[in-house]
Amino acid sequence: MPVVTLLTDYGHGDDFVGVCHGVIVGICSAARIIDLSHAIPRHHVRAGAVVLRDALPYLPVGFHVAVVDPGVGGERRAVALRTADERVLIGPDNGVLTPAPQRAGGVVEAIDVGRSPFRLTPVSATFHGRDIFAPVAARLAAGAATADAGDPLDPRELTELTLPRPRYEGTTLVAHALAIDGFGNVALDAGHDDLPGSGLRLGATAELEVAGTRRAIRYGLTFTDVAAGEPLLYEDAHRALAVAVNRASAARGLGIGLDDEVRIRPVG
Amino acid sequence: MPVVTLLTDYGHGDDFVGVCHGVIVGICSAARIIDLSHAIPRHHVRAGAVVLRDALPYLPVGFHVAVVDPGVGGERRAVALRTADERVLIGPDNGVLTPAPQRAGGVVEAIDVGRSPFRLTPVSATFHGRDIFAPVAARLAAGAATADAGDPLDPRELTELTLPRPRYEGTTLVAHALAIDGFGNVALDAGHDDLPGSGLRLGATAELEVAGTRRAIRYGLTFTDVAAGEPLLYEDAHRALAVAVNRASAARGLGIGLDDEVRIRPVG
Amino acid sequence: MPVVTLLTDYGHGDDFVGVCHGVIVGICSAARIIDLSHAIPRHHVRAGAVVLRDALPYLPVGFHVAVVDPGVGGERRAVALRTADERVLIGPDNGVLTPAPQRAGGVVEAIDVGRSPFRLTPVSATFHGRDIFAPVAARLAAGAATADAGDPLDPRELTELTLPRPRYEGTTLVAHALAIDGFGNVALDAGHDDLPGSGLRLGATAELEVAGTRRAIRYGLTFTDVAAGEPLLYEDAHRALAVAVNRASAARGLGIGLDDEVRIRPVG
Repeated sequence: MPVVTLLTDYGHGDDFVGVCHGVIVGICSAARIIDLSHAIPRHHVRAGAVVLRDALPYLPVGFHVAVVDPGVGGERRAVALRTADERVLIGPDNGVLTPAPQRAGGVVEAIDVGRSPFRLTPVSATFHGRDIFAPVAARLAAGAATADAGDPLDPRELTELTLPRPRYEGTTLVAHALAIDGFGNVALDAGHDDLPGSGLRLGATAELEVAGTRRAIRYGLTFTDVAAGEPLLYEDAHRALAVAVNRASAARGLGIGLDDEVRIRPVG
Repeated sequence: MPVVTLLTDYGHGDDFVGVCHGVIVGICSAARIIDLSHAIPRHHVRAGAVVLRDALPYLPVGFHVAVVDPGVGGERRAVALRTADERVLIGPDNGVLTPAPQRAGGVVEAIDVGRSPFRLTPVSATFHGRDIFAPVAARLAAGAATADAGDPLDPRELTELTLPRPRYEGTTLVAHALAIDGFGNVALDAGHDDLPGSGLRLGATAELEVAGTRRAIRYGLTFTDVAAGEPLLYEDAHRALAVAVNRASAARGLGIGLDDEVRIRPVG
Repeated sequence: MPVVTLLTDYGHGDDFVGVCHGVIVGICSAARIIDLSHAIPRHHVRAGAVVLRDALPYLPVGFHVAVVDPGVGGERRAVALRTADERVLIGPDNGVLTPAPQRAGGVVEAIDVGRSPFRLTPVSATFHGRDIFAPVAARLAAGAATADAGDPLDPRELTELTLPRPRYEGTTLVAHALAIDGFGNVALDAGHDDLPGSGLRLGATAELEVAGTRRAIRYGLTFTDVAAGEPLLYEDAHRALAVAVNRASAARGLGIGLDDEVRIRPVG
């Protein structure tokens, strides 16, 4: 069964997702649809891009739709991108798709699907998930060639996204809150590869600074390494450096919002 | 694979939907279940009816369950309705089902399934989604005839729903907020067919009046036709006239609630 | 098609559930996945245990994952439990799994899957749903033997959960709020079997006492047995004694929170 995955900012409060499922099943009844997430913060292209990039290695090879699309119906392109590992990513060309293939060998074929023969007609100006992205994914899942989905495009013309990067100021790692999950755990833009040379030692205490407030924080493996209510620095399931509070929300408890600067330094 | 679609006001905060899936799969393991929406406002029969009516053309022909059922366990009937285009709609006979088939050739067979041989026993008094509607849909999906699902009923006895309608007062189109989506976009009860003669011209400015407050509003095609924060009048993806605010919520920003009167007139 | 059901406290605000689906489909493409609920209150092991126990009879026999896991990555065991009726329950050994099989003939085989050969590697310290529970369920769904999923464990060593129980004080039934659904209906720990001898009579009025406040309440069958806004005592769809307010939330309207004591006595 061909796999179609869906990532959107449609939320669960409307029938948008259900209608996209209906369109896909109507075109490709064999499609196996996986709802990756529909809770990307509204119009937050970068948040969607990060979720797609991090989740993709755990998804079967398939047709991966991502719709976070504040420019729907405007001049932004709609695209389908075939990657080196034979996935196809489908969505608006606003950067939501491009970080993912960087970890998967890059884009080997790009198609502009804005006027795809596979789209529903008439195409609405405001619901391209239903009228363009879902039917294009479904037709590809049913066996159509990507080349037939629209007009070829030079992959170098795709919109790239600039993600924040951490830096060092002396021994202080200056990172940023890249994602906050529903538990209130805060993933930073620093990861496994940024840690050598940081002086941070597993099991030791570090200092965490947010908005000028400094706190001791234990660098551990998992939530239960600290008492309930205590902060924890750890590598999360995507190997990003992250901040949690055991049994509570680090975002709320420590006052960390998306993109906020988080400063970490070893102690002693 | 037979398709079963589910529309309810059960929300995503409980296991009600999951249990209905379990019942359906237990009876018809081949059923393809599509969750159309489970976020209809609690007990809001008309809201469910409008979503079902508008979404149905995008769903494969199948067995379409709709449960918005404040009268569960009381005297309202439970019904299965076969339409001219060979869909079967299943739910309480309180009006949630009836607007949909009006656009699909009407109801050609109606069955009272309140005492259906397909229901689970004992039937609870409060969860007919699990005990009546899901198993009836599943047995039909597995190949049973609608006539065997219960007692025949004259389709003219079905509960009809009266939907609000717009009117003209001189050159002013007096419409009503029929639905508000999760983005805060407001769909009106006026649609494509009500616009000829309105004097509204695409690309021009109109006047919008809500609760006595008048504003200029651009009549455009899509959100990006106006600057962020600016109001937009447009035809939405169901060809209803709708009010949005680019990158924000029109419902909140303009103070429009469900059923509120929205007055629109051309300018100049 | 083998059935895999998922119950978690992951919520719908992240991609955790979608990633688990991806992992399962990647291992067992034939798996039929049912999302039982992902809205268990965060870390509320007992709430998850009660939902799983009550829903299980409505689910096809299959592989039932339950992840409410505040101790993830710590010393709690991860287990797979085969029941007398050939279901397999998979999750942390913190009590979330154990009430369910008590109604299904008990556990006939227990396996410690913490170091299962089926787990993904490297195993993260914080996302065992993705790295242990989903892949173990998927491999079992694909036909692997439970004995091959890890190390055998004496079922008597499993963590049992103590659920609250009602008691009588004279003619007063002293029960507790065991679960509150999204409609605000309150299920008590008293059920069908506790009622004989209670003096409560269907159709009659009883007295309800919450936090010292006493109210008359009708003991009926369904919501419409009382006027909108009026309280109702009834047997819910799981045959638990429950408190509702027709068309409104009993939890909010009557001030009942989880675990609160609810005192009920017959009148006259």
